[in-house]
Amino acid sequence: MALIVQKYGGSSVANPGRIQNVARRVAGYRAKGDQVVVVVSAMSGVTDNLIGLAKEITPLPSEREMDMLLATGEQQTIALTAIALHELGVAATSLTGAQAGIVTDGVHTKARIQNITPKKVHALLDAGNVVIVAGFQGETPEGHITTLGRGGSDLTAIALAAALKADLCQIYTDVDGVYTTDPRIVPGARKLSEVSYDEMLELAGAGAKVMQGRSVEFAKKFGVVFEVRSSMNDNPGTIVKEETRSMEDVVIRGVALDKNQAKVTLVAVPDRPGVAARVFKALGEAAVNVDMIVQNISHGVPATDLSFTLDKADLAKARRLIDTLKADVGFREALVSEQIGKLSIVGVGMRSHSGVAAKMFETLAREGINIEMISTSEIKISVVIDLARGEAAVQAVHRAFLG
Amino acid sequence: MALIVQKYGGSSVANPGRIQNVARRVAGYRAKGDQVVVVVSAMSGVTDNLIGLAKEITPLPSEREMDMLLATGEQQTIALTAIALHELGVAATSLTGAQAGIVTDGVHTKARIQNITPKKVHALLDAGNVVIVAGFQGETPEGHITTLGRGGSDLTAIALAAALKADLCQIYTDVDGVYTTDPRIVPGARKLSEVSYDEMLELAGAGAKVMQGRSVEFAKKFGVVFEVRSSMNDNPGTIVKEETRSMEDVVIRGVALDKNQAKVTLVAVPDRPGVAARVFKALGEAAVNVDMIVQNISHGVPATDLSFTLDKADLAKARRLIDTLKADVGFREALVSEQIGKLSIVGVGMRSHSGVAAKMFETLAREGINIEMISTSEIKISVVIDLARGEAAVQAVHRAFLG
Repeated sequence: MALIVQKYGGSSVANPGRIQNVARRVAGYRAKGDQVVVVVSAMSGVTDNLIGLAKEITPLPSEREMDMLLATGEQQTIALTAIALHELGVAATSLTGAQAGIVTDGVHTKARIQNITPKKVHALLDAGNVVIVAGFQGETPEGHITTLGRGGSDLTAIALAAALKADLCQIYTDVDGVYTTDPRIVPGARKLSEVSYDEMLELAGAGAKVMQGRSVEFAKKFGVVFEVRSSMNDNPGTIVKEETRSMEDVVIRGVALDKNQAKVTLVAVPDRPGVAARVFKALGEAAVNVDMIVQNISHGVPATDLSFTLDKADLAKARRLIDTLKADVGFREALVSEQIGKLSIVGVGMRSHSGVAAKMFETLAREGINIEMISTSEIKISVVIDLARGEAAVQAVHRAFLG
Repeated sequence: MALIVQKYGGSSVANPGRIQNVARRVAGYRAKGDQVVVVVSAMSGVTDNLIGLAKEITPLPSEREMDMLLATGEQQTIALTAIALHELGVAATSLTGAQAGIVTDGVHTKARIQNITPKKVHALLDAGNVVIVAGFQGETPEGHITTLGRGGSDLTAIALAAALKADLCQIYTDVDGVYTTDPRIVPGARKLSEVSYDEMLELAGAGAKVMQGRSVEFAKKFGVVFEVRSSMNDNPGTIVKEETRSMEDVVIRGVALDKNQAKVTLVAVPDRPGVAARVFKALGEAAVNVDMIVQNISHGVPATDLSFTLDKADLAKARRLIDTLKADVGFREALVSEQIGKLSIVGVGMRSHSGVAAKMFETLAREGINIEMISTSEIKISVVIDLARGEAAVQAVHRAFLG
């Protein structure tokens, strides 16, 4: 008998029929004698509808009240899931985030979990129930309802798995697991049977949109082993866990392409201490998320070029800042390009294998693909290239490293 | 400065535009310096949609989970109402029933309020907020979400007004107040400026569907004076309060017609002790709501006819019982008619005026309307007549008593 935490996303519970499918899967585990905690998201579409209602009143609704509003989405799903389990003869009880003992800080719409006191969850499990917990939500110590922001339901599942010391945590989604790259770009892409937390984090940051990095970080911090798998079939998924020695036998775990970045180059920035700090402080204060930053040494002239990439969604905000920065910092001009792709290769094995970067660059050169920026971490190499060549680059690099 | 509790029903908050209208009204009271607690229902349609989702899974969903599901409707409205008030520059905070301190028993889907500890409501009011409370819901001492059943939001408002010792409780609805009779039947019907709790109760029981009797009983028990008025205009409504001496100057307060009753007559029931008890015990156990009961003395033969009325909605259940009862009790046959109307006149003044019943019966006789059953209370006289003559009867009786 194992204690399993299962999380089902919005498309897996999109309507009563799909909720009944989820219930059948849960009932199957229960029939084997496992204890099951189910974490569910809002039915897909529900959250957007609620946001739409609020936006009819004002473009900038209060964040506390948005949490009050949006928390109802998951609350509806937990009730319907419990009802579907009862219909299969399975004892089940639903709990809101607050009732499940999920305590957060007071930063509405993106609260952080402070602690979990799963007393009720334990009591209900012990009494033979499947416990269904609303994802994405919690309560402050003062009793205000909060939500956890993007990827919040994954976080609920992983945090509950940690608090309950669950034997297994399964994240059900609409893909079969984590792939060596996007199968729509490379038909020969393979599903990975396992991946380390750090690789998963780098893949998430590199544009492989399986999970938010935040939940993976939480899992890493608390050592929660979890499996990403599909709610549409019974295929085994990908296990995400601490790095093991054998993982290093594989040099590159995956290849990712992020098409949602734009590149900004500030030309002829004065090469003085504090200039870069002023640029990125201003961007940070405007909540512009900067990803890669590249600055090369200046030679001869006391000026250099400073490039960075950012989410395309933040580009409008960044452009508004650039004029102010130009007057303040004194660079010559700003070049902006949205026609870029960020290509990354990720693998804990690259640490112990030299020549990985060289092989990547050679592969791209052979395809005639120019590299505009390079950035590396211990287990990742990212390059910025022309967006139009992005998919060709993924195919070539996947072939070179993953066959 | 007064403390006012205002309740807005589902049609008053049906969409963001109407919620903004509610917010403007609340802001008007706030601008005069009043403290305002707002109780809201779910947006009209929301509750039915949620019930529909559950019924797609099973015809008989768990009541605990239905409460979990349906409580989200009001929770959405409180958040949107707070957002609309903020947009008008009015400080406002929403609270679920549980957060507002509304504690109920554990009878899911029709819980009874046990007590209210409005600590948070007081604190928020003192800090200058409008407090918006989700109607229709509460929480058990063990922390399960409950709902209060039909008319639950009115009950929330009246119970909160009692707990907060509010100066005024306003029930906003889609009618202007309580009328001497249905204005669609009698164009000359007049809005009553005041009515006693007992009259309101008898009118509710007589088919005047302004409010559930339950909320009126609660108001009477705790002496909460409330006003029924329209959310569509600024007309004063009807004040509902304890009977005053001057109320007795009016013999008849109102005339009501209930078209939703059916009549059952059990013919030739053995006239022995215990027979009526067996009949109504069986009906009660099947949750059939019986309204009027009439049995006349038997003369000569040891058998009598026993008639009763019940909600048409319960008729199918009652018919299923009748065969069993026939074998058990031994009456000759059961006559069922759905073509009846229950006509009632209500007024505390009738206690001190003789001849009211005679005047009512004479009026009906003059119109050629046959009386099938009669039942009276201290402040009400009800008769069952042919449904087809119902409206003519209301017009004649209204003319005779209310001019």
